[in-house]
Amino acid sequence: MKSARILFNNKTLDVTINEQDQVVTQQGDVLADGSFTWLPPCEGKMFVLAINYADHAAELSFKAPEEPLVFLKNKNSLIGHDQNTYRPDNVDYMHYECELVVVIGKEAKNVSKEDAMNYVGGYTVGNDYAIRDYLENYYRPNLRVKSRDTCTPIGPYLVDAKDIKDPHNLMLRTYINGELKQEGNTKDLVFNIPHLIAYLSDIMTLTPGDMIFTGTPEGLADVKPGDVVTTEVEGVGVLKNTIISETEYLKTI
Amino acid sequence: MKSARILFNNKTLDVTINEQDQVVTQQGDVLADGSFTWLPPCEGKMFVLAINYADHAAELSFKAPEEPLVFLKNKNSLIGHDQNTYRPDNVDYMHYECELVVVIGKEAKNVSKEDAMNYVGGYTVGNDYAIRDYLENYYRPNLRVKSRDTCTPIGPYLVDAKDIKDPHNLMLRTYINGELKQEGNTKDLVFNIPHLIAYLSDIMTLTPGDMIFTGTPEGLADVKPGDVVTTEVEGVGVLKNTIISETEYLKTI
Repeated sequence: MKSARILFNNKTLDVTINEQDQVVTQQGDVLADGSFTWLPPCEGKMFVLAINYADHAAELSFKAPEEPLVFLKNKNSLIGHDQNTYRPDNVDYMHYECELVVVIGKEAKNVSKEDAMNYVGGYTVGNDYAIRDYLENYYRPNLRVKSRDTCTPIGPYLVDAKDIKDPHNLMLRTYINGELKQEGNTKDLVFNIPHLIAYLSDIMTLTPGDMIFTGTPEGLADVKPGDVVTTEVEGVGVLKNTIISETEYLKTI
Repeated sequence: MKSARILFNNKTLDVTINEQDQVVTQQGDVLADGSFTWLPPCEGKMFVLAINYADHAAELSFKAPEEPLVFLKNKNSLIGHDQNTYRPDNVDYMHYECELVVVIGKEAKNVSKEDAMNYVGGYTVGNDYAIRDYLENYYRPNLRVKSRDTCTPIGPYLVDAKDIKDPHNLMLRTYINGELKQEGNTKDLVFNIPHLIAYLSDIMTLTPGDMIFTGTPEGLADVKPGDVVTTEVEGVGVLKNTIISETEYLKTI
């Protein structure tokens, strides 16, 4: 099953997605495209993997880490499908990062790798934009790189865990204005999903809705205002996002 | 005014603290000590300053940073006054960090230093425990160092901003089992409160309840199960916390 959250007539609704990729309310009404706004399909703690594909590590001239390199974000950065992300004015390089996002389904503490997949509730697509200007070193995906408002599109919907047969063999692709720019496969994750859940749940309690952004493969490129960026994870969804300038963004808030 | 949140008869209550330091409900009832549990007095994003006192930077053999060195935590780490924090079994060094916590009072985006103090709602005391074993370098106060469940006591209460005449001249003190171990003053902050609010609100929108843990001065020491750790910020509060072992902690959850 696919579930989503939308804003419709100023109300937040939990909806499902039918076989024809249409949005259906809990009352069974099918909503027309354009009549609602997509919201992030989940909320919880946000764990983000840095350098979890060896080819991407090489691309940034870093060695692959020996243990998961995880940082945190807050929900201020989250937006839903088909929304705008701003590029700060006066930066030189902002890149997308197409990622499989693992969403926790039940409380997890000290979970073993063997048992870890039972704690996955579902999957969605994330785009973890980064301002490369501020990336100082291997350990520093700091606030200025990764935590701005609107810099983490996610969605469009959550796909139930049971509907994804092998999350470790999914193609990831990013297109800018329709042109393929990034391609990879989750089989190349440095630390796989059971490893990440075991690692994190050893440190702290994971709760339903927590998100693990599993990292991005190589193939990054700069994005500019006006670009339409589409990130896609095979079987999980196609997430569309438009880049606007900071000046334009500030007029909207 | 001082306000707090407590758990009383299995209900979460917003309460105030009177001149005699007693807890008073919204109905005017004074609650007896021991009849309730202290909860964290606020919730929101958690910004934590690393190395924001020059003497503490020297103590860890780091140079003071040139811009605020901020990391994030999640509320899984938060506990209230007079609760227990676990020390992971098999670590060599866990230290307290007494900190003035600035709590945001109204939405703030792109706030100037000159205007920043108008966005402070109040202050509380925080103790930002760290597992020194995992502190790899200047930039890496990572999850294993700083994000475990229960590792961030805060409280007991929130003191209104208007009741703290000069937040940049407050003594900080930490006692272990009644013995003074750490002493400093917020006048020695490397980046002061207006600087931090301006810096953070340039990156993202701050919202009411967001917390800025402003860093700790020198004077750290290892804590062991059984230790009672008291962190105190002049005029803001006295926060008590007891260290228990991980084994003991796991029995309680």
